[in-house]
Amino acid sequence: MEYFADIPPIQYEGPQSKNSLAFKHYNPEEIIEGQSMRDLFRFSICYWHTFRGTGSDPFGAGTLQRPWDDGSDSVENALKRVDVAFEFFEKLQAPYYCFHDKDVSPDGETLKEANENLDRIADKLLEAQERTGIKLLWGTANMFSHPRFMHGAATSPNADVFAYAAAQVKKAMEVTHRLGGENYVFWGGREGYMNLFNTDMKRELDHLARFMHLAVEHAQKIGFKGQFLFEPKPKEPTKHQYDFDAAACLNFLRANDLLDHVKLNIETNHATLAGHTMMHELVYSSIQGALGSIDANTGDLLLGWDTDQFPTDIYLTTQCMLAILDQGGLAPGGVNFDAKVRRESFEPIDLFYAHIGGMDAFARGAKIAAQIRKDGILSDFVAKRYASYDEGIGQQIESGSVSFTDLEAYMLEKGDSAPNLSGRQEWIENVINDYL
Amino acid sequence: MEYFADIPPIQYEGPQSKNSLAFKHYNPEEIIEGQSMRDLFRFSICYWHTFRGTGSDPFGAGTLQRPWDDGSDSVENALKRVDVAFEFFEKLQAPYYCFHDKDVSPDGETLKEANENLDRIADKLLEAQERTGIKLLWGTANMFSHPRFMHGAATSPNADVFAYAAAQVKKAMEVTHRLGGENYVFWGGREGYMNLFNTDMKRELDHLARFMHLAVEHAQKIGFKGQFLFEPKPKEPTKHQYDFDAAACLNFLRANDLLDHVKLNIETNHATLAGHTMMHELVYSSIQGALGSIDANTGDLLLGWDTDQFPTDIYLTTQCMLAILDQGGLAPGGVNFDAKVRRESFEPIDLFYAHIGGMDAFARGAKIAAQIRKDGILSDFVAKRYASYDEGIGQQIESGSVSFTDLEAYMLEKGDSAPNLSGRQEWIENVINDYL
Amino acid sequence: MEYFADIPPIQYEGPQSKNSLAFKHYNPEEIIEGQSMRDLFRFSICYWHTFRGTGSDPFGAGTLQRPWDDGSDSVENALKRVDVAFEFFEKLQAPYYCFHDKDVSPDGETLKEANENLDRIADKLLEAQERTGIKLLWGTANMFSHPRFMHGAATSPNADVFAYAAAQVKKAMEVTHRLGGENYVFWGGREGYMNLFNTDMKRELDHLARFMHLAVEHAQKIGFKGQFLFEPKPKEPTKHQYDFDAAACLNFLRANDLLDHVKLNIETNHATLAGHTMMHELVYSSIQGALGSIDANTGDLLLGWDTDQFPTDIYLTTQCMLAILDQGGLAPGGVNFDAKVRRESFEPIDLFYAHIGGMDAFARGAKIAAQIRKDGILSDFVAKRYASYDEGIGQQIESGSVSFTDLEAYMLEKGDSAPNLSGRQEWIENVINDYL
Amino acid sequence: MEYFADIPPIQYEGPQSKNSLAFKHYNPEEIIEGQSMRDLFRFSICYWHTFRGTGSDPFGAGTLQRPWDDGSDSVENALKRVDVAFEFFEKLQAPYYCFHDKDVSPDGETLKEANENLDRIADKLLEAQERTGIKLLWGTANMFSHPRFMHGAATSPNADVFAYAAAQVKKAMEVTHRLGGENYVFWGGREGYMNLFNTDMKRELDHLARFMHLAVEHAQKIGFKGQFLFEPKPKEPTKHQYDFDAAACLNFLRANDLLDHVKLNIETNHATLAGHTMMHELVYSSIQGALGSIDANTGDLLLGWDTDQFPTDIYLTTQCMLAILDQGGLAPGGVNFDAKVRRESFEPIDLFYAHIGGMDAFARGAKIAAQIRKDGILSDFVAKRYASYDEGIGQQIESGSVSFTDLEAYMLEKGDSAPNLSGRQEWIENVINDYL
Ligand SMILES: [Co+2]
Ligand SMILES: [Co+2]
Ligand SMILES: [Co+2]
Ligand SMILES: [Co+2]
Ligand SMILES: [Co+2]
Ligand SMILES: [Co+2]
Ligand SMILES: [Co+2]
Ligand SMILES: [Co+2]
Repeated sequence: MEYFADIPPIQYEGPQSKNSLAFKHYNPEEIIEGQSMRDLFRFSICYWHTFRGTGSDPFGAGTLQRPWDDGSDSVENALKRVDVAFEFFEKLQAPYYCFHDKDVSPDGETLKEANENLDRIADKLLEAQERTGIKLLWGTANMFSHPRFMHGAATSPNADVFAYAAAQVKKAMEVTHRLGGENYVFWGGREGYMNLFNTDMKRELDHLARFMHLAVEHAQKIGFKGQFLFEPKPKEPTKHQYDFDAAACLNFLRANDLLDHVKLNIETNHATLAGHTMMHELVYSSIQGALGSIDANTGDLLLGWDTDQFPTDIYLTTQCMLAILDQGGLAPGGVNFDAKVRRESFEPIDLFYAHIGGMDAFARGAKIAAQIRKDGILSDFVAKRYASYDEGIGQQIESGSVSFTDLEAYMLEKGDSAPNLSGRQEWIENVINDYL
Repeated sequence: MEYFADIPPIQYEGPQSKNSLAFKHYNPEEIIEGQSMRDLFRFSICYWHTFRGTGSDPFGAGTLQRPWDDGSDSVENALKRVDVAFEFFEKLQAPYYCFHDKDVSPDGETLKEANENLDRIADKLLEAQERTGIKLLWGTANMFSHPRFMHGAATSPNADVFAYAAAQVKKAMEVTHRLGGENYVFWGGREGYMNLFNTDMKRELDHLARFMHLAVEHAQKIGFKGQFLFEPKPKEPTKHQYDFDAAACLNFLRANDLLDHVKLNIETNHATLAGHTMMHELVYSSIQGALGSIDANTGDLLLGWDTDQFPTDIYLTTQCMLAILDQGGLAPGGVNFDAKVRRESFEPIDLFYAHIGGMDAFARGAKIAAQIRKDGILSDFVAKRYASYDEGIGQQIESGSVSFTDLEAYMLEKGDSAPNLSGRQEWIENVINDYL
Repeated sequence: MEYFADIPPIQYEGPQSKNSLAFKHYNPEEIIEGQSMRDLFRFSICYWHTFRGTGSDPFGAGTLQRPWDDGSDSVENALKRVDVAFEFFEKLQAPYYCFHDKDVSPDGETLKEANENLDRIADKLLEAQERTGIKLLWGTANMFSHPRFMHGAATSPNADVFAYAAAQVKKAMEVTHRLGGENYVFWGGREGYMNLFNTDMKRELDHLARFMHLAVEHAQKIGFKGQFLFEPKPKEPTKHQYDFDAAACLNFLRANDLLDHVKLNIETNHATLAGHTMMHELVYSSIQGALGSIDANTGDLLLGWDTDQFPTDIYLTTQCMLAILDQGGLAPGGVNFDAKVRRESFEPIDLFYAHIGGMDAFARGAKIAAQIRKDGILSDFVAKRYASYDEGIGQQIESGSVSFTDLEAYMLEKGDSAPNLSGRQEWIENVINDYL
Repeated sequence: MEYFADIPPIQYEGPQSKNSLAFKHYNPEEIIEGQSMRDLFRFSICYWHTFRGTGSDPFGAGTLQRPWDDGSDSVENALKRVDVAFEFFEKLQAPYYCFHDKDVSPDGETLKEANENLDRIADKLLEAQERTGIKLLWGTANMFSHPRFMHGAATSPNADVFAYAAAQVKKAMEVTHRLGGENYVFWGGREGYMNLFNTDMKRELDHLARFMHLAVEHAQKIGFKGQFLFEPKPKEPTKHQYDFDAAACLNFLRANDLLDHVKLNIETNHATLAGHTMMHELVYSSIQGALGSIDANTGDLLLGWDTDQFPTDIYLTTQCMLAILDQGGLAPGGVNFDAKVRRESFEPIDLFYAHIGGMDAFARGAKIAAQIRKDGILSDFVAKRYASYDEGIGQQIESGSVSFTDLEAYMLEKGDSAPNLSGRQEWIENVINDYL
């Protein structure tokens, strides 16, 4: 059965096309810096927003029309969703997808039942993967929706909840492994606090570190070689999350000897909620060898919550692709659309418009970024800006051959530093506009 | 000569006093958890706001009446300010002060001249310290006001600026050492970027790490045993500062092997600009052994810049003191008022009101915090909340004796986790109000 | 049947009480500026958060234990909730309550069925009111939760939705009238836009004005003399709401000749989301004769969404009460707790702690405000600050007897203005602390 | 003498040009919707940032190299700046400029001296205008920089300051009139408060209204027919400004019967600091007949202060031009670059890059907006969205022929409203990207 019968497979038709259901910029075969767009982006569709979103918000009920979904939590409904999802992935030419355990599979009265449900769905997912060639970018476990996790999962003050979470991640990781998942993500929805007065932050952070080490050990045990990814988010649902931003995550990973095992999954809307640009978080992670994957979306900087909108701003995608091309791509990570249609865009066709828009925006960003990199205007400017460190006193500073005493002597002799160069921010902004 | 002739030494008169020029709560001799208030707070007056502030802002000229100051950059004027400052410190019973090199001393045409000026002022400061018993909490170097530092100091793309900064910190550290300074602070005013397109973040962070290592080495060389302190601030003057918040600072220190040498100086207004409560930054630093000192002030959460207001909110000071008492105090750090009177509070007497208010607010906060700690209502609540980790599966988790496989087996057997306890946030807020 | 059997009626026991289930400050009989606390505050409990809240959030399911509620949308369940609610109101000594139509009564398949349901519940509410003496502060209609209202109610681009909303408000107003409601509130949950590109703002605002005029006309027709109240909120659920803040509401009311009929219901958390302090919104409304009632709660200024927390900050309640006492109270409005327990505070007893905390905090605020007003320190300071307008050129300016030409002549003669006085912000903050 | 000898007049060279000192999109002669770009934009250069900015900020001294400026406050220096400015205006083909009195002319010891200085400069400005054909878009008075205005100008508690401000505006308006200025702007830098406790908001707002009425009367007296403009800004330098946003300004103007005399000057960075998009403020003002002119710049939404950056984002300029074209242009207002180069962009040539970038960005925005308008995709979508108001019940609602009773009868009969249409936000975003 076809669920999107009116919607043809989405094809690349080029910038001149007037077809709203075609790619105008994303051409999977087109080569960017030696990689096809397909391999460069490794686009992934998320199961939660796209197949489990209802359009509900804190002020209103669901609005989204999903005619294939009977609204129940049955295994049958879940199995049918797999078909819908893979038809959608195929029509969009998306090579990857990703999920939380609870997105794809009904919860159970007991852990056992939940696990059995997940196994049944996993069988079907595997079948669909094999049939279509679509692959799993990453799996994860939802440890924030169930009331049990109200105080956190690995950081819950209730040790049983830690145990439940451990069992759940074990299973989710095993299923991810079975499905050939290339990464495993930790986003700790409620790993944070509502209130410092009732919280033992040290104990909670120690538990979180213990939890991650147990996960790493289990991966080794079962031979799962996928990359672990930690996803920063500053707040929401909790008042303050321990994975606040890339810096907080990296400090945590470093302090707990996890940096060799875990990279970051950076999301635009989480970056901006934390007071950073997406480009900051990408560059900051990348230079520390920790940029693993991205959740491609965008926020509204005038709103204080995670709107998870589809990324369509070409400036944003250009910035993302500058950072990503700089490290040669994201593999085994990818560009996952952790984005949802607005609740007023309630028709299934809106899901197509939304993903086409995001994929095209990234394609434009990549072409622009590649051209900027090829022309070298910006990189030459930056190289010249730091040239004083390539020789003389600068080189000595970098090589570690001068002390404060030496530097003082140098400057007492010289009296004052050589003049600065203009930062040229306005010229740079014009240059970038020239590429749009 | 007396500069504040109309203002008597500020004395503790108790809560019933109607005297605006008396302490109503700060009683230096009063004992809190075994320490006198004097020793617990180690209050410090900052030279920059209090003696160099003019009341200018980006939209207007200075307003502050400082009759002793001729407005010139002369050494004579600077020397006179020392007398004014120490009279002020004494009248306020402040045991400490702190400064940037350029606060106390005129800059010079050359580095040599600047250093000579600083030496002359340091002579006078030493004399004043010896005369009054007032001590130097910390020194630092201003490497952000001079145009030379427009692109940063240690992170400038101009290697000569790095060299100049090195020479300047060397001197400032030596003067701090000579004056018996108990700490040395790094706040990198322009150590960040305005624009990622013209910035090589990796190179800049490497330079910053190099700089700090050189400082540590120089301290060892000259026998300076004071504590190094790194002060987080997210933005302003730059768009994004490398010392964004405690997490960013600690990640940097960890990544560069500086954690043994450097702790943090946490400022309220910087915490909130970064999206954290002051209490968060204090607890987060403290549990990592890195809470060294505080810049006591407050921001306006509806304003997006660093207003550096005097801290008068008793909730805030209670939270600060809960965190500080929890680690037994701050020494060799202290409570430094990095705070300034509003530009409309232009009379010298406003400086007294402001500091009295801040000192009294901290005294009240400390008494409240000590009482809360003594009664144990909150700490008992927290202990009980985490009690499941003190035995059984929780204890096994903490001791590292269970794997994911063990935890899954435990939970498969149990089916679901034991119930949670209410977080009781509203009750806690009432409890705290009971202590006010 | 008693639903809170373990919880005694909450009594005033005074500040020394150690009883968490007693008022320590709210004493209904105590007189403040000539009014009993009961009459001054006119405390109201809201039905939505307190009896319909589930603890769900965008990331998780409901958590709140409400043993009396079978979770169904049946009329029986709704009727039982009335009993629970009135027991709660009585135990808390709350003289008022308020509701949306959909809080108290199940929706219907048709408008007719919905109206019939509401009538049945209204019968029971009336009975409970008469039995207990508890009164209805205000009613309102929920025109944001049903998917029909996804694009707004009065501002929907769908004229039928306007019609439905009109019918719904008509009914809600009639029920409010029947129950002796003293006010009727408009909070336009989705009266705004998600996106300006698909929005005809002019047409939408015209429709909103038409809607309010129709409401006013209907009130006159049925003899409802209650006060209409418009509640500002800047955003959430929509990206931008037309009732952004007091200024936007008042501009709208003025532009559409509604100012004689409608005042404002000011909510703390909405004020701060709009970038204002609560005190600002209160004073700003009050001096325009438009402060009608308040939704007493508080937000978290580091979070960007409406957390609707219980107000416990004594500074906040003091500021509220200074503004409210300044206009002699709020009647026929009142202090309505539009506040909810955190989802981690899931026990019924937490509802008691929460409301006791809010009521006590307002009581403390009122006592402090009254004392400040009685002592006159602040008001004297302000009067002196503006004294130059009480005579001479200032008086002429206020009386309108001088032109620019006159003022220029005056100043050309004088050369420059007389000196300013210090704004004394720090002293003022100390003064306020003295009253805490 | 030529001050920018190395810089040729900036010419339109088209999108393919590689010349950083050419327009690639701004072609003054090109026609957009029947107007030349010159007449459509009426670009204006501001005197304050461009000729009086120094690059100082709260953390550092000036950095900008302005070789023609001796840094003194002399009349000679001011006269020379006029030459520099007009050379700059001409080279940029900017048809307009604007200024505060204190930008162009030195202050005086007395009002009289200040006025005389202004007259001397005005002579020279007039001469330069006549020589070059460049015109004055608007004048204004700086009533925030001098310490006299610390507590406000028209809203100062010091009546003499009101008088001084009146004299100053009188003079500034007369000079604007003499120079043929087409508008006169009020931006009340310190017309707000730092602190509500020391403020009589009612009295201050009454004074502000009185002040504006006096200005209107004086304009009539001297025959000045220019448009008065009120510029919203939410905060900075004060904690809260009375001209917070368009809504606050319009409410004030309406309440005080000033709406016939005063329109708004909307600035992007002020819009976003107030929590609105620029497009919101433009549309909101425009539909109320109050959009007079714009201050074209941009802020950084992750920073909380007014950065006044040059506008280069094509999405932003497209949105601006959609709103502006919708009302047929801005005349007698215009597009004034209230924008400054970053302090690190310290060379004179950066001023050229910056303005070229802004002018080109507006030209691109206008072409895109005109094409969108011509194709009608968005306007058709919007028209269809509201079509239910063009007939039937919707038409009756708009025409005022139905009451709540009628609407209830209609809906009781119908049972529920007709279905909604999808809001299509994602599709719209794609459509807009197609035009970039
Ligand atoms: Co994500
Ligand atoms: Co997100
Ligand atoms: Co500081
Ligand atoms: Co600060
Ligand atoms: Co409310
Ligand atoms: Co609310
Ligand atoms: Co402006
Ligand atoms: Co501005």
